[in-house]
Amino acid sequence: VVFVRIELLPIKTQLIKEDDDLVEILLHSVSLNGQTIRDGDIIVIASTVISLTEKRKKAINEVKISEKAKQLAELHKTDPVLIQLIIDENAEIIGGPPGFLLTIWHGIPCINACIDATNAPLGCYMLPPKDPMASAHRIKEEIKSVVGKDVAIIIADSGVVPGKRGTIGIAIGFAGIKPIKNYIGKKDLYGNVFRVTQQNIIDLVASSAELLMGEADERIPFVIVRFEDTNIEFTQNVHLEDMLFPLDKCIFMSNILTKKRK
Amino acid sequence: VVFVRIELLPIKTQLIKEDDDLVEILLHSVSLNGQTIRDGDIIVIASTVISLTEKRKKAINEVKISEKAKQLAELHKTDPVLIQLIIDENAEIIGGPPGFLLTIWHGIPCINACIDATNAPLGCYMLPPKDPMASAHRIKEEIKSVVGKDVAIIIADSGVVPGKRGTIGIAIGFAGIKPIKNYIGKKDLYGNVFRVTQQNIIDLVASSAELLMGEADERIPFVIVRFEDTNIEFTQNVHLEDMLFPLDKCIFMSNILTKKRK
Repeated sequence: VVFVRIELLPIKTQLIKEDDDLVEILLHSVSLNGQTIRDGDIIVIASTVISLTEKRKKAINEVKISEKAKQLAELHKTDPVLIQLIIDENAEIIGGPPGFLLTIWHGIPCINACIDATNAPLGCYMLPPKDPMASAHRIKEEIKSVVGKDVAIIIADSGVVPGKRGTIGIAIGFAGIKPIKNYIGKKDLYGNVFRVTQQNIIDLVASSAELLMGEADERIPFVIVRFEDTNIEFTQNVHLEDMLFPLDKCIFMSNILTKKRK
Repeated sequence: VVFVRIELLPIKTQLIKEDDDLVEILLHSVSLNGQTIRDGDIIVIASTVISLTEKRKKAINEVKISEKAKQLAELHKTDPVLIQLIIDENAEIIGGPPGFLLTIWHGIPCINACIDATNAPLGCYMLPPKDPMASAHRIKEEIKSVVGKDVAIIIADSGVVPGKRGTIGIAIGFAGIKPIKNYIGKKDLYGNVFRVTQQNIIDLVASSAELLMGEADERIPFVIVRFEDTNIEFTQNVHLEDMLFPLDKCIFMSNILTKKRK
């Protein structure tokens, strides 16, 4: 009997600069790290390096602050520049502790629309990738065209488990993989049929990789996740919506939105 | 240069029964799986098998339903038996979609106080471990006394990432490991000092293991997580509170509780 194990391979890189070709650095670093890319690999990429090479750095002194942003900044006790950038990202602001606002961005509940003041040069904010699904797809295609391998891509950002200290990894974009694993119709240990259970595969994989990426200067923006699970579907045809749960049915967001949106 | 990688080793077992000795089965199965336990291993254990061997099965027809439970069941459109069990667990009921109530149990925001109708025999609910911190500590000590190895234990239950489909793994108890990794005072890629960043190590590890455990009849209640990270502290002196974030500062829970508790 072969027991399927999971291997997580950290890919250390040079300091990535905004004019760099991200896929070139990935492939070069994979080789320097003594690895090769294989069909079926899941490559988790830190959103910060995608933002950087997509030139999503935003100088604070270039941001024009609207009246609306000023009002919201006062209401939420948060930097008006950050508020303006959140508005410009078309994110819905829910609110929260000063400086850490719950927002809904591309349908994803997240902190400050995934805009980051750390891992950004002084005097700048780093915006999230413009269209993370498109970025993931593009990187997947580039890898295919250069090395001929079919991989899945997950773009990981930081999130939190409600009520817990510290950050976990959450997927904000993906390509080549179905984000959930379905247990509908399967049976549990006692033969009971599961009614609705699904497993959030991409956030689980993003979180696994986050253990190696760290948040500081580790310079590990890529992690290869390698395991065989016949229940995970590698597929071309994926959409952002595949990972989103209706917010009015979400155990956390339903409790928040019944208050805020009514 | 040695690049630290992570190995996740699934430990498949026989069907565990309520009179079984969990540590005996773990150690026997580790050996049958061709593994040995090493110092520094993190062993993730599914809460279901701890509940089972702690005889936390509850027959539905033995539950006495109070007036309060009846009222709350009507309010939340949820089985009064489940409500009564949640009350008996001393959990705070916040509310949510019918059948899936957000609760705060042992300080942890979770679904239905971690009481489960799946993975329970017909006509029963499975209560969570009575005191998950104590269970984790006891299992750690038993392993130490039998094989002489110092391991960390994480007890994993199911949680969700707000707004995302499917479940992830969340830690409800732990022993021998500091639950968070601190970046306070460290520097990011650009030399900026991090103000408050912490990484939620135990939920990341629990989620990694969840990729192998699955939710159905895989019979993999144990996963050994093996990697070297000098930033992870193995320590005896741990408390439940070490993993809990003040709810009034949590980006999700602060938005919920300002409504419910005022």
